[in-house]
Parts: sequence; C-alpha cells; structure tokens
Amino acid sequence: MSDKKEYTNIGKRVPKLDAVDKVTGKAVYPQDIKLPGMLYGKILWSEQAHAEILEIDTSEAEKLSGVKAVITAKDMPPTKMGIIQDNSPLKDDKVRSLRDEIAAVAAVDEDTAERALELIKVKYKPLSAVFDPEEAMKDGAPQVHAEAKGNRNKLHYSLEYGDVDAAKAESDVVVKHRFKLPFVKHCCLGLHSCVASWDGAGKLTMYSPTQVPFLYQRDLAKVLQILPSMIRVIQPKIGGAFGSKLDLYPNEVICAVLAKKTGRPVKLTYTREEEFKCTPSRQPAIIDIEVGAKKDGTLTFRDVFLILDNGAYTSWGATTPYVIMNPVTSLYKCKNIRFDTAIIYTNNMYSGAMRGYGNPQGNFAVESMMDILAEKLGMDALELRLKNCNEPGEVTPQGMRVTTCGLRECIETVAKRLDWAHKRNRRDNQTGTLRRGVGLASYFHVGGGARVYRSDGCGAIVKMDDFGHVTLITGSTDIGTGSETVLAQITAEELGVRTEDVTVVNNDSAIKPWDVGVHASRTTFIAGNAAREAAAKIKARILKKASEMLDEPENKLEINNRKVYSKTNPEQVIDIGKVIRRAHFREHGEAFVAEAFYDPPTEMQDKEHRGNISVTYGFGTQGAEVEVDTETGQVRILKMVIANDVGRAINPMLLEGQFEGGLSMGIGYALLEKLVVENGEVKNPSFLDYKMPTVKDMPPIEIVLVETDDPAGPFGAKGAAEGGTIPTAAAIRNAVADALGFHMLELPLQPEKVLNAIKAHRIIGD
Amino acid sequence: MSDKKEYTNIGKRVPKLDAVDKVTGKAVYPQDIKLPGMLYGKILWSEQAHAEILEIDTSEAEKLSGVKAVITAKDMPPTKMGIIQDNSPLKDDKVRSLRDEIAAVAAVDEDTAERALELIKVKYKPLSAVFDPEEAMKDGAPQVHAEAKGNRNKLHYSLEYGDVDAAKAESDVVVKHRFKLPFVKHCCLGLHSCVASWDGAGKLTMYSPTQVPFLYQRDLAKVLQILPSMIRVIQPKIGGAFGSKLDLYPNEVICAVLAKKTGRPVKLTYTREEEFKCTPSRQPAIIDIEVGAKKDGTLTFRDVFLILDNGAYTSWGATTPYVIMNPVTSLYKCKNIRFDTAIIYTNNMYSGAMRGYGNPQGNFAVESMMDILAEKLGMDALELRLKNCNEPGEVTPQGMRVTTCGLRECIETVAKRLDWAHKRNRRDNQTGTLRRGVGLASYFHVGGGARVYRSDGCGAIVKMDDFGHVTLITGSTDIGTGSETVLAQITAEELGVRTEDVTVVNNDSAIKPWDVGVHASRTTFIAGNAAREAAAKIKARILKKASEMLDEPENKLEINNRKVYSKTNPEQVIDIGKVIRRAHFREHGEAFVAEAFYDPPTEMQDKEHRGNISVTYGFGTQGAEVEVDTETGQVRILKMVIANDVGRAINPMLLEGQFEGGLSMGIGYALLEKLVVENGEVKNPSFLDYKMPTVKDMPPIEIVLVETDDPAGPFGAKGAAEGGTIPTAAAIRNAVADALGFHMLELPLQPEKVLNAIKAHRIIGD
Repeated sequence: MSDKKEYTNIGKRVPKLDAVDKVTGKAVYPQDIKLPGMLYGKILWSEQAHAEILEIDTSEAEKLSGVKAVITAKDMPPTKMGIIQDNSPLKDDKVRSLRDEIAAVAAVDEDTAERALELIKVKYKPLSAVFDPEEAMKDGAPQVHAEAKGNRNKLHYSLEYGDVDAAKAESDVVVKHRFKLPFVKHCCLGLHSCVASWDGAGKLTMYSPTQVPFLYQRDLAKVLQILPSMIRVIQPKIGGAFGSKLDLYPNEVICAVLAKKTGRPVKLTYTREEEFKCTPSRQPAIIDIEVGAKKDGTLTFRDVFLILDNGAYTSWGATTPYVIMNPVTSLYKCKNIRFDTAIIYTNNMYSGAMRGYGNPQGNFAVESMMDILAEKLGMDALELRLKNCNEPGEVTPQGMRVTTCGLRECIETVAKRLDWAHKRNRRDNQTGTLRRGVGLASYFHVGGGARVYRSDGCGAIVKMDDFGHVTLITGSTDIGTGSETVLAQITAEELGVRTEDVTVVNNDSAIKPWDVGVHASRTTFIAGNAAREAAAKIKARILKKASEMLDEPENKLEINNRKVYSKTNPEQVIDIGKVIRRAHFREHGEAFVAEAFYDPPTEMQDKEHRGNISVTYGFGTQGAEVEVDTETGQVRILKMVIANDVGRAINPMLLEGQFEGGLSMGIGYALLEKLVVENGEVKNPSFLDYKMPTVKDMPPIEIVLVETDDPAGPFGAKGAAEGGTIPTAAAIRNAVADALGFHMLELPLQPEKVLNAIKAHRIIGD
Repeated sequence: MSDKKEYTNIGKRVPKLDAVDKVTGKAVYPQDIKLPGMLYGKILWSEQAHAEILEIDTSEAEKLSGVKAVITAKDMPPTKMGIIQDNSPLKDDKVRSLRDEIAAVAAVDEDTAERALELIKVKYKPLSAVFDPEEAMKDGAPQVHAEAKGNRNKLHYSLEYGDVDAAKAESDVVVKHRFKLPFVKHCCLGLHSCVASWDGAGKLTMYSPTQVPFLYQRDLAKVLQILPSMIRVIQPKIGGAFGSKLDLYPNEVICAVLAKKTGRPVKLTYTREEEFKCTPSRQPAIIDIEVGAKKDGTLTFRDVFLILDNGAYTSWGATTPYVIMNPVTSLYKCKNIRFDTAIIYTNNMYSGAMRGYGNPQGNFAVESMMDILAEKLGMDALELRLKNCNEPGEVTPQGMRVTTCGLRECIETVAKRLDWAHKRNRRDNQTGTLRRGVGLASYFHVGGGARVYRSDGCGAIVKMDDFGHVTLITGSTDIGTGSETVLAQITAEELGVRTEDVTVVNNDSAIKPWDVGVHASRTTFIAGNAAREAAAKIKARILKKASEMLDEPENKLEINNRKVYSKTNPEQVIDIGKVIRRAHFREHGEAFVAEAFYDPPTEMQDKEHRGNISVTYGFGTQGAEVEVDTETGQVRILKMVIANDVGRAINPMLLEGQFEGGLSMGIGYALLEKLVVENGEVKNPSFLDYKMPTVKDMPPIEIVLVETDDPAGPFGAKGAAEGGTIPTAAAIRNAVADALGFHMLELPLQPEKVLNAIKAHRIIGD
C-alpha cells in the first residue's frame, strides 16, 4: 500500500492499557474478588462415566461445621440447560460422564467445602458406556440419551453445492484420506471462577469471565427462571478464554443457587485439575475428505464427511461444523462441494468452542490434502495454491463475498521468506538422520464480524470530559486480547486525542450497550466501527463549536493530538479541552456524550448454509521449516513465517502478540498437545503431563502484516485474532511430509508416532 | 390541583431501591472497601491551636514494624488547597487550629498506624490565638494569616437594593436585634472515609463519599498537580452528607499521597471523635438585623450585617452568605434591602456547607423578626406574613423569578392545622408552670437548580435492554436521599415501564456524564429533567417501531406498564420488550440507548447578586406547638406541622422522609445541638455529649405536600430536600416566644438558657 495516511494512534505499537497492572498483580481477576460475608463453593463430580444415581446422602456434609449449604438436583430449578437443553446443572437420575455435577457445597472456606464433598455419599447403578464415536454409532451401542437414537445429536450440518459426483467423474486426479484430530485444551492461565451475589431487591450480580455477557445473562436467566434483566454480569479481568467461556456452564448456575440458598455471596473457582477435566475442550474430529483436480491443477470438488465426538452433552463444540465447512467450501476456489456430519454422543466430556471454532480442524484436512493432491498431480504445492487462490470480488460457494483479499501476497511472502524455491522437495539431497523440509498452509475465516446470531451488533457510548479525555463504554469484552487498547486507539484517532487519553469501560452488563460477545475475531472490526461512529458524532460537535470560536468553516478544521486546528491556517489552533469547556461552562451549556450501534451489513445463512455472514474475510498463510530427527521422531521447527492480511494494523505489537500466541497454540496442536482420555477419564490433567508449548518450544518467527486497507473496517482493519492458530498444524504437517516423503494424517505429531511412521515407511533403515 | 393526571410510577410511595441492602448490611460504604494489599492511613493532628512548627521527627515512627510510609509537608506537592487556596494538606511552618494536619502514616492496620502517630515528635513554638470573631476583628488581635489583615477573609458579600435609609426614615415601625447561632454538626452516620489506589498507568482511583465528584476530581488534581482526567472517582454508598462532603479536604489528599508513596491502596477512615473535631461544621453566625414596616404591615426594609466565624481556613462555609442573603432579600416582599458581611479568621476549626447552606441562619433572623415586628405593629404574625406573601409572577429584589408559588397555601395550611386562631397569643389564659404557644415560619429557597457555577447541568444516559428493563446512568449522586429511586420513577414513567425495571448507575466519574454535584436541592429537578429527556428520546424510537408493527400512527400510541398500546384501539397492544427485540435482532438491527444533558435556563448572578439562578423556587411553612416548663426551662414540642410546595411529589414517602429528617435537624438546631468549642477545642466530640435528637425527641408530625405542578419540573416536581430544615428553628423559637411573651435570640434553646431568660423576665416568680 503505497499511499497510506499517517495516523497519530493507528498503526502504533501501544502497550496494552492494563499491561502494568497485569504484570504487577494489581489487575483483579475473578478469583481475586472478595465480597463481605463471601462463601466458597465446590462441586462433587461423578465417579462413574455412565450410571443411574440411586441415592445421594448429604446429611453428614450438612452437619460439618462451616458448611452453609449442600445442594443437589432437588434444590435446582427444574429447567434444563445447554444449547439444545440436554444438560442439567446438577444431575438427578443419571450421570453420563465423569464431569457430571452431582452435588455442591458452600462453606466458609475451600478446605471445609472440600471436606464436605468427601462426606457426601452417592450410590450408583453402573451402566455400560461408550467412549468412541464410531462405536457409539453402531447398532446396540449403549445409549447416552434415550431420546437420541443411535447416539446421533439432533444437530446436523450438511450441504451440497454444484455436482460433486459429476465433478469426481471428470477429475484427472482424485485422492481420499481420513484425518484424525485429538482433544486439546485452551490452557487459559486464568482458572474458571465466578462469584454470585443476590441483592435485597432480588437481583443477581454474577462476576464472571464470560466472553458473551448478554447471551450469558439470557441463558442463566432461563435456567434460573428469572428475567434476564434481573442478572447483572460483571466481568473482572479475564485470564484468557479462546472460546472456553463462550457458553454458560453448570458451575455458574450452581454458584448462583448456592448464593441464593445461603443469602451470601459465593465464589466458585476450579482447581487446575478441574480445569482440565471439567471444562470443554476442542472437539476431536475424524474427517474423511476426498478431493479432485484437473491436470492443470484446477480444483474440481471436495467431499467431506465429519464425525465429531460430542461427549455426553451439547455445547458449542457440536456447532463447530458450521465453521469447519468454511475452509471446505471457501479456501481456494472450488465449485463442487459436499459436506456432511455425524455428531455423536459418547460418555466422554463434552466439547466447546476454541480459537478458530472448527476451522483449525477443517483447515488441517483441506490444506494437508492440497499438498497430497499436488504430489499426485506432480505439481508444486505452492503453484497449486496460487492457481486456485482466492481473489477480491470472488463469491464463494457459500455466498461469502470476498472484498479485500491479500491471500496471494501472503502465500508469495511466506514462500519467499521460506526460500521455497530452494528448500522445498529437497529430500534427495539430504543424508544423515536429520531431515529438513518446508511446508505452508493458508486459511480463510470471517474477518468482518459473523452473523451467526440474528444480531452481530455492538454498541458504544463515548463521553469526553472537560479536559479532552475520553471514556469509551463499549459493549465488547476484552478477554485478554488487548481489544480495549485497540478500541482506545480507534476512538482516540477519530477524536484527535491520544490513546492514553481514553478510558475503556467494558465489563458491566448494566452499563455497557449490547454486544453479541467475543468470538469470530469480530471485536476490532465490529466494536471498532461502533466506537468510531460514536466518536465521530462528538467530533462533529466539537468541530462545530471550534468553528464558531475560530471563525473558520468546519470543513477546514481538523483535530489531532488534542488540538483543533485549521488545515489552511496553522496559526488557528485551540486546545480540544478548551473547546469543550467553553461549550460546557456557560448558560445553555452542552456536554459531549454520544452513542452508536453498529450492526454490520451482513446476512444470516440460509438452510443451504449460503449467506454473506461477514462484511469482509480474513486470509493468511503460515510457513514452517522443520527438521525431523529420524532416530527419535522429534520434530524441531527451525523457523515459522506468518504473513497475514490484517486489513490495517491498528496496533502491530498486539497483532504480533496475537500471531505469536496463536502460533504457539497451533504448534501445540501440531506437535505436542493431546488430552489423553481413556474410558472417559482424563489421564493427564496437569501442566506436567499435558504438554503445551513453553517459550523454549517456540521457534524463530517472522511476521509480515499484509495491509489491504479494508474499506469497511475501522481505519481499514479486519479481524485476525483466530488466524494465528488456524493453518499452523497443516503448515507443520506439510513441512514434515516434505522432510520425510510420506504423509501423516493424525495429530499431534509426537515423537513416538513420527518414529513409528518412519519405521513403517523405512525412511531410515534400522 | 383538581385535574391531575394519574401516573403509574409518579406519586407512588416506592421504597428506596437500595433499602433492603442498606438495612441488611449488604450495601458497601467506603469503610467496607477492601482492596488487595490495602494499607490503613491515620493523620496526626496539631496539639496547638496556633503555633509555629519547629521540628517534626518521624524517625521512630518509620522504624515501627508494619509502617509503610510516614509523610509530612515535605512529601506533599507544593500546591495550596481550599476555595481561596489558604490551606495545605499537611502543614509545614505553622498550625492555625487544633484540626491542622501535621503528618500521616500508612500501615498494615489501624492499630499500627495509631501507634506510629504516637511516635512522631513535634516541637511547637506557641503563638497567641484568637477564638472569637469579634475579638479577632479588633486592632492588635493575633493574626491567623499574615496576608489577611484584621483577620478579614477576602471573601465579602454585600448588596443594597432600593434605598434602605429612606425606607427606614419612612417606616412606622423599626426594630433591630442581634441573633447568635452556634456551631452544629451534620452528624452523618457514615464516617468520612476514602480509599486511594494508583494503577500502573499512573491513574488514581479515589473511592470517596464526595457529593461533587467532578468538582472534587478537578480540585484534587489541582493539589496533586495532575490532570483531572487522571483521577477516577468512585462513590460507594454514602452514609449521609448534608453538605459535609461538598468540598475536597486534606484527608483525601493525604490518602492519595500515602497510596502513591507506598504503591499500595490506602484507606483512611475517621473515628467518630475525628468526625466531630476534624470535619467542617455549620458556620456559627452573629446576625444584626433591622427591619421596618408601615402601619398596615407592608414591609419597608431589611438591613442585615453578618459576622461569620470563618475558623482558620476557608471552605464553603465562608460562602454561605450567598444563600443567607436569599431569605433576607426574597422571603416575603420587601424592596429595600441592605446586606453586608464580615467573614473573620479565628483559630477555631473551619466550617463548611450544611443543609440549607446558610438559609437556616438567615431564615432564623428574618422569621424571628417577622414575629417581633408583628408584635410591635400590634398585628397578628400570620396576617403580617400573608400580607407580604410571595406570589407567582413576582420578581424578587435579587432578580429571582417566582413562577409557581404555594407559599400562601402552605402558611394557611399550617395555621389551620395548628389551630392558630385559637392557640396563638393565649398567654393570658394560661396558669401554672407549663406554658403553651404556637409559632410558624416559612422559607424561600432555590427549587429548580442553582446556577452558582457556570454550569448547573446534569447528563443522563438511558439504555433499554431486550426485555424492557432500563439502565439510567446519571451524572447525579445519591448521598442517601433516595434520589436514585426518584430518578428511576421519572425514567420509568417516561418510558412506560415500572420503577423496579430501572437500574440506576450513579457512582463512577469515568462512566457517568457530568453533573455539578449534590447541593441546592437540585437533583430531582435537574437530574430528573435530564433523565426524562434521555428517556423521551428512546420512547420516541420505540413508538416509531411499534407504529410499524401495529400499523397505527405514532401519535395514537402510548406506553404504560411495559406495554405499547393504541389509545383508540385497546386491542392493539404489544409488550415493550417485544418491540425492542424485533428492532434489535434482525439485519440492520438497532439498540436503544440515548443521552441527554439538561442545563437549566437560568443565569449567574451579577456583581450586585442579581440573577435568576433557579428555574423555580421552593417554599414551605413549618408550625410548632410547644409547651415550656417554666420550672426547668425544658421546651417540649407538642406537634409540628409542615406544609411544603414540592411542585409534584414524585415519591411522597421519600419526601416525607426528607421532611422528617430535615425537621429533626431543625429541632436539634432549635433546642439541643451545640458543638462546644473552647479555645479552639471541641469539648463534646461524641454522641454522648453532643445532643442530636433521637427518635424519642421527635414530636408528632403532620406533613402536607402542596402540589403546584411546576411546568419546568420533571412531571411537575421541584426541589425540596433542604426545605425541611430551614424554617424549623424560627418556628419553634416563635412558638416559645408565644408561650413566654418574650423573645430569645440565640440558639439552641437549651433548658438552662430558657430558664435563665424566664427568671430574667420574671415570667414565673421564684
């Protein structure tokens, strides 16, 4: 972009506004909250993966000194919960997984609450259980929910565009494979923790790390059988979310009921072990994918069948096919698409949303198949991608309208920086036990909101004080991404002040205007547009006032760096605070407050899953150079390159942080992370046994922010936060394949698995 | 008012929204706040009323374990503070009263902080001191401030309207007296307490019970030499204020500096003894007043000279003449007015604002003189008042434009309920030691805001959620009066929902729009109009949407009790939440947020103190029937009657509460309360020795709310909160005079004083 406007705040490497408070321990997370008279809650989990509950005896627990309440299903409202109402906050008749909640205690401290749990006696009648979705699909398998025949979840996603069978018949090359992806966890440093407090007027205040305060309010109210307006959601600092706080979970309902029953505030904080065992994971997936192409590399079709292990209840994990279909239909041009799913109940714990919302799973299959297909075609994988590359103006089979699109630039940048021309497909030149390869993968994702609910809007209120400082009250939530800093930059730029002049208020449902929540990389784009629109209203009023004061037409005035000045006569300048004060401190005074609500010009998908759900789309490419130790199976990443279309970088430092964090999550997915679940039991519920990448596992990273200046984005920006994670695993897998000359189809590429494959393919004889 | 509209929320006896939380102890007052790592502050007060400070040795205190900071003047910014900058948060060279702050400590708990104070050694060189303002005015008196010659404060208030000397010469009757009024205290149950906390970005959050958050922010910033925008003021529940929290005081500066120095939050809470000794009082006054009349009772002139004991520094108490002049110029019609003041520094503690802001002092003199004048004229005191009664359409000598005025109705109502015709002036019929009398007094006060700063505005933001519930973010502050409930009623009425559907947010300067603060009985009127205006904007938008849905013109639609309905076709009805949701949850959705800023159409006073500072004015009358025990001097109130022009009672119960509370304060002023200050020392700093009325001291009270339906007020309301206190003392004094046949001119009418006067006037021989 040659002719870019220079901004005062936009494009600047501004540290997070709350960075110092976070690193010095001043920031208040849910677990730091102490309310007068507060009690501590604990949950009793099932000891059986599948059983009838015959009896729950809480009498001994109730007698324990310091215990203020013991609750079971009989203390709960009779409502079901969950997105298809197949769960209960406490189970009465039956348990269906080891994370099932059976009873809960509120006591004066956590130790007492834990001792009380030990005193609760539960009698079970064990039932046969099923832990593998393919087993669960078979006739005669144990039934997790009586009403879900064949353990089929009633959620089902399928589509067919074009004529897949005809395209298959006409293809020069067709390949088909099965990919398998594991359970992985978000590994937020902030534990799930909430505090519930009822006031004298019957209103409930929930201090919760939810990503979706207004949906949470609605869902919690439904379970508690009160009006959503009776719940005030206050979000303390959130220590990471990545989708893990996108739903209402039983612990929050339990906490509210304990507080109601005791008449005192109750805090319920998970241990790290509970965090691993009792919170949703990324949905494990089996993906059968068949793709084809013409000799020249033109993609002809994709045909995908997806089996998801739903676990025992239904949360957002079950809806991830909605996004998994995006790369299948829209990454690279391909007209004939079939996509079908089987979402299968098992007695495992259920899954939820996680960064990318299924796109990492879908992307892994699609981008792995691009390499496999290229190989079959005898074509360079880079060339195949460029041939089918998405382009501005394209409408994808799902009806998604690509506006700005930097994908070609991203692919070419990564290839160049990887030295693709010299490093790809160099197996024949390598000797010894260490083998090197390069690979890349791209992604397609929403980048301008995502109309997955009827509203994708966000509100903003901007208030300027008498000294030119600003409060932005935004509907959006900062789950740790730094969105409040980005929104401060946008607001400051529009108003002509400085980022540090903006205070962002974003954590109280009673105060902030509505927003659908943090998901789909939408906050910078949607909340940014809302903030900018509200700020623009104030700017117009300031310019009008200044025009009177400076006797200069409004259209000749501009505001920058806290001054209003004449664009034609630089001596005409006045401090912004002075304008405000002159307008305010007088008879018939004014105050400078404005509001806006931005709901993007998008549409819901129709029944065929067609619809332009986002104003613009995000693209990016990652490349990996790896070295595989053929004696140990260890994959070492020598270098990662990320080139990403961010529209415009509002804050390059925070974007780089997003990409680094996203990459680390992607590297974990590719090489290290797997929640080991055996017979429904999590075998590695600790950071000692669950291997997420540490700083030592991080390779050198090159990040290139490709700026396409999206005309609909705030100052040109588009969403990019999930992008860092989506293509990483495929890029690394493709590099490993390039190093070894064969294809691995299951994640993670842990040494044992790689070594076994090396042996099977006799890469190095032994 | 015969033809009054019936409202759903207006005129209803709605309990305070926070009533249950307050009575059950759930409400969080400043002293309840606990922040992580918080320290406790304490202040070392002067041991001398007037002295040079030779040395402050803090070394021993600093060594005490648990002490985190000891500060003296050298740790403070070099700025002065106070409304004329004659005070310092910690004193370096000189102390001028026993409430002077010398040093302060922050420690891990209050006990440690107190022990540390004992270890601080201060060497003084005592100076001669002066405690009586008349002594202080004399040549050669000790000088409190070198720059204030003759101990005259540079604040000075004087005016002359008409020709007082000519009027005096032409008067048929002239009387002159000196009235003396004591130090009294606000006696808030909530102690002065604040918490200061600096964040990593250099921003200060003050948890403060201030009545004026935005002025406080500005004043504190000035002392700390930072931008006001760097201070966020959060107001926890406030346990009463009555003017006592209208200024910034040294304790809050000290708290902020202790927090800055230690890098930790610091809480500083006064003891009850400090509350009595170290917070401002009502300004004691000596009032020389001369008044005259024609034979027919027409008032001819008032000539007032006021001596105020300013104490050692200047706070708002010194500005009370601004309001004392109101009853002098404007209560009853009188054209020729002279008013002059001497505001005199002494070595007493300084005074501040207190309910009525000088009006109780001025009113006492003016209304006592009405009775004395009537007596001289041989005229009934009631008749004299009615003859000179204020009336709608009148412009007072100060240029105050009376619009609605229920004074005549108030006077007549009180007279009737007191049975004035049969009970007044019945001394001749009484025998024995118990003598009865009746008296009354009225008041004139601002009732539609008070433009005493350049802005008298208040902002409001109203947000409606998807279920028809509402948040009102108001600039105003609820200091315990129930204003948030009244504002909820106004907002609910305008929007057609119910009071309990409204959540009021009013305690965070970063969030709420600007407001000048709680004073001058302005909140219901000013903040009410702002809230109504913002709500009206949303109402208009809802009606527009509903009009589309119901296919009915907007002007035929109304909203009430959560429903939008057709005024002509009652079957056309739709739930308000449904309208909102239909407008919100769709493509191009809307959200319902609006803001307004109400700055009343008033003017600042000119140099002659003329100007219509309020949109409307408040009037009221109180009557007392008393029984004086001539053997003990004890005055027993048999009955009080209050009739008050409230414009329109938004909440009769809360208004009655205001009048009962105001009356109790007035009864204390009349009969019981006096802060005994000897040589600058408070001798009765406890509720044991300082006698405020308890529930046992309260007489039967009849309250009549006179509704004049002010066209400028929200739903007709005008301000009335201070009114309850203003005329009480004069009414009681007048009743005592009616009982005894002579006039007492000093408050309080404590038994000893009354008995001495009885003896001097030989009412009952002994």
